[in-house]
Amino acid sequence: MAPPTTARVTAVETHDIRFPTSRDLDGSDAMNPDPDYSAAYVVLRTDAADGHEGHGFTFTIGRGNDVQVAAIEALRAHVVGRSVDALCADPGTLSRDLIGDSQLRWLGPEKGVMHMAIGAVVNAAWDLAAKRADKPLWRLLAEADPAWLVSQIDFRYLTDALTPDEALALLVHGREGAAERTAHLLERGYPAYTTSAGWLGYDDEKLTRLAVRAVADGFRQIKLKVGADLADDVRRCRAARAAVGPGIRLAIDANQRWDVDEAIRWTRALAEFDPYWIEEPTSPDDILGHAAVRRAVAPVKVATGEHVHNRVVFKQLLQAGALDVLQLDAARVGGVNENLAILLLAAKFGVPVCPHAGGVGLCELVQHLSMFDHVALTGTTEDRVIEYVDHLHDHFLDPVVMRAGHYAAPTAPGFSAAMRPESIERYTYPGGTFWAADLAARKENEA
Amino acid sequence: MAPPTTARVTAVETHDIRFPTSRDLDGSDAMNPDPDYSAAYVVLRTDAADGHEGHGFTFTIGRGNDVQVAAIEALRAHVVGRSVDALCADPGTLSRDLIGDSQLRWLGPEKGVMHMAIGAVVNAAWDLAAKRADKPLWRLLAEADPAWLVSQIDFRYLTDALTPDEALALLVHGREGAAERTAHLLERGYPAYTTSAGWLGYDDEKLTRLAVRAVADGFRQIKLKVGADLADDVRRCRAARAAVGPGIRLAIDANQRWDVDEAIRWTRALAEFDPYWIEEPTSPDDILGHAAVRRAVAPVKVATGEHVHNRVVFKQLLQAGALDVLQLDAARVGGVNENLAILLLAAKFGVPVCPHAGGVGLCELVQHLSMFDHVALTGTTEDRVIEYVDHLHDHFLDPVVMRAGHYAAPTAPGFSAAMRPESIERYTYPGGTFWAADLAARKENEA
Repeated sequence: MAPPTTARVTAVETHDIRFPTSRDLDGSDAMNPDPDYSAAYVVLRTDAADGHEGHGFTFTIGRGNDVQVAAIEALRAHVVGRSVDALCADPGTLSRDLIGDSQLRWLGPEKGVMHMAIGAVVNAAWDLAAKRADKPLWRLLAEADPAWLVSQIDFRYLTDALTPDEALALLVHGREGAAERTAHLLERGYPAYTTSAGWLGYDDEKLTRLAVRAVADGFRQIKLKVGADLADDVRRCRAARAAVGPGIRLAIDANQRWDVDEAIRWTRALAEFDPYWIEEPTSPDDILGHAAVRRAVAPVKVATGEHVHNRVVFKQLLQAGALDVLQLDAARVGGVNENLAILLLAAKFGVPVCPHAGGVGLCELVQHLSMFDHVALTGTTEDRVIEYVDHLHDHFLDPVVMRAGHYAAPTAPGFSAAMRPESIERYTYPGGTFWAADLAARKENEA
Repeated sequence: MAPPTTARVTAVETHDIRFPTSRDLDGSDAMNPDPDYSAAYVVLRTDAADGHEGHGFTFTIGRGNDVQVAAIEALRAHVVGRSVDALCADPGTLSRDLIGDSQLRWLGPEKGVMHMAIGAVVNAAWDLAAKRADKPLWRLLAEADPAWLVSQIDFRYLTDALTPDEALALLVHGREGAAERTAHLLERGYPAYTTSAGWLGYDDEKLTRLAVRAVADGFRQIKLKVGADLADDVRRCRAARAAVGPGIRLAIDANQRWDVDEAIRWTRALAEFDPYWIEEPTSPDDILGHAAVRRAVAPVKVATGEHVHNRVVFKQLLQAGALDVLQLDAARVGGVNENLAILLLAAKFGVPVCPHAGGVGLCELVQHLSMFDHVALTGTTEDRVIEYVDHLHDHFLDPVVMRAGHYAAPTAPGFSAAMRPESIERYTYPGGTFWAADLAARKENEA
């Protein structure tokens, strides 16, 4: 254990980073035709002698990334001046202080722009804590005292579904056999599925080619975007199923496109292609709607979570029997602390967690959460896969490594959140070198 | 009908306006100990010859008002350049365009900072439309073609509970007898209840004095904040009940303070004082939790809505039987269009709407919605009251007028949203004359 220090957080630095992904229709789906994958990015600087920084971000898809940055900046006064030792020993206090700011809370509570900003800052604190502990985050969590993990969770609004004592029991039980699972994880990695083949903007030839390649690369599940046009979906699902054969799981994703009755009709119309799950069939706020869809489309499973804004909604999705697969997101909710609560809720209800990823850096983050879940909570990877999308990883200092359809376990200390300085410089909006040149070219075209 | 014009929206002007209400503990409750009532304020300017402007705002309680202003500014490109004629003939298109911006939608969807910004801009468009129609908004709505009102509503995610045909039938039926109700409304006003007596920061003497005065002023219902300390609540409820006698409704409001089981225990412990409703017993996101509380505390009614972020959550609260009283807010959801959907959902499920008000200008706004509901939708004010708080009305050009515990029907054209120019100038943060002087005084004190 390191000796105590007087180090403080000295700065909360923010960056508005945007990648021009809309130009290739990467990431296109039924609700998001032209995303520019972006990050509202935050760096916590300290005056500690070790020189470590905490990096975190929220993922957005372009416009509004500036609003997200403004929200992170509104949290600055809560962070600057904190003891680095205290922050890293107990990120839960920061989390509670940010969520508990009564004036900022009015802007949610615990949802939307303000809550995502909290997630970015809290995740940056965990990145710093893991670096200072000289461990990848998944390992820090998996080796932590269960009682300390419980202390990191805000149980407000959860106790009718999960009490601190129940959480502790799950964590204590989850620790049994952790050493063996760690060894296995380091050797084999964590199973993934890929969405890279199935973007709505891709034609059938590209879809088929990428689907075949995904199976050759070792993936046992792929995902297709659906929901814009039923005839197109039938054709694309048929092509994909033909390409991968019957033994590969084929998930479909409507990105919130449908009303409840429409979701049921559309999913049934695609049932002949044996979809494994239907993802985001309707509004992410519609707990009762998801439950109705699930009852109607079984055995097709219902998956959701990337836009579920906090633990209270996840609690109800589980209570209502609305979910077969829980897709937490690393940067939508209030960061690691809230995701610990969500993992524990899922464990209590026996629902597998298959995190949402892709975007900018979400793969880098969520792998840590799933690996902790495997090693020290549920003890299994059965029916569990982390989404994988082959986008933008080269902008990260510690990018994910895929081996035979599995995420290799990160070994570098931290939360894998740090972006390359040259990428930050180039894609800062609107002043970075890429955007400045782009703007100049547009002006020239207009002239 | 006015002749067509070529007028355009020329500017979207924003203001960060904050009132130092925390200094008197006005507005203090169990979750919000020290609010500085604030408005992220927007003005739509046009080049029309009539000189009308559209005013709107989102209410916040201080910190973060700048984030809210930034969110309104992110919408500017959708508004500037629009035809004023088209905008006023069909604010629903603006509403759909703002909610449908796929990149901004990622920051919600339809919740939190971004959605409240949409509400501010959409409400400003309605203010402009009502001024150009030379009618107060309630009257514009109450006299509009029912089919046109239906066209103003986004039914996405609602059709499992309310279809456009059902909405049209409710509106057509609601129009019967509207002329008589309009005359009655203009004569008697709309019943109110007051929260001015019950702030948590007030001592028992002030509470008792204000409660007695409220009854003398003609109010038949008052409301007390509860939830911080049970012994205090028992004492305060006893004092309030003794002050007003048995014939006056006494509502209590926990402002989301409790978990589900705690809400049930605490409400039962106050049952001897015959509370009329328990408001916001737990998280506004907890639909199933509200339903559980309602089942357990009857005959005490359950009320919520001021933090319910969109029509999808209201739909479920109604579907789940979680509510006795629906408290819509004029500036939390996406503005008038979404509130039309919410009023129609409440009408279909037979649940009375008693809007949330207070704050900055919320009384001015919600009165129009309730008056429309009375005149041209549900046709009744039975068990319906608009919240009234005696704060900050003097900053508005067309402030609410209370008569014998009733809101007098506004007669000036518009949505009553416009603040006095001198108030905007004085309370703009941080550069307005009040805050500049305040900052100078603080600096002097520190020196």
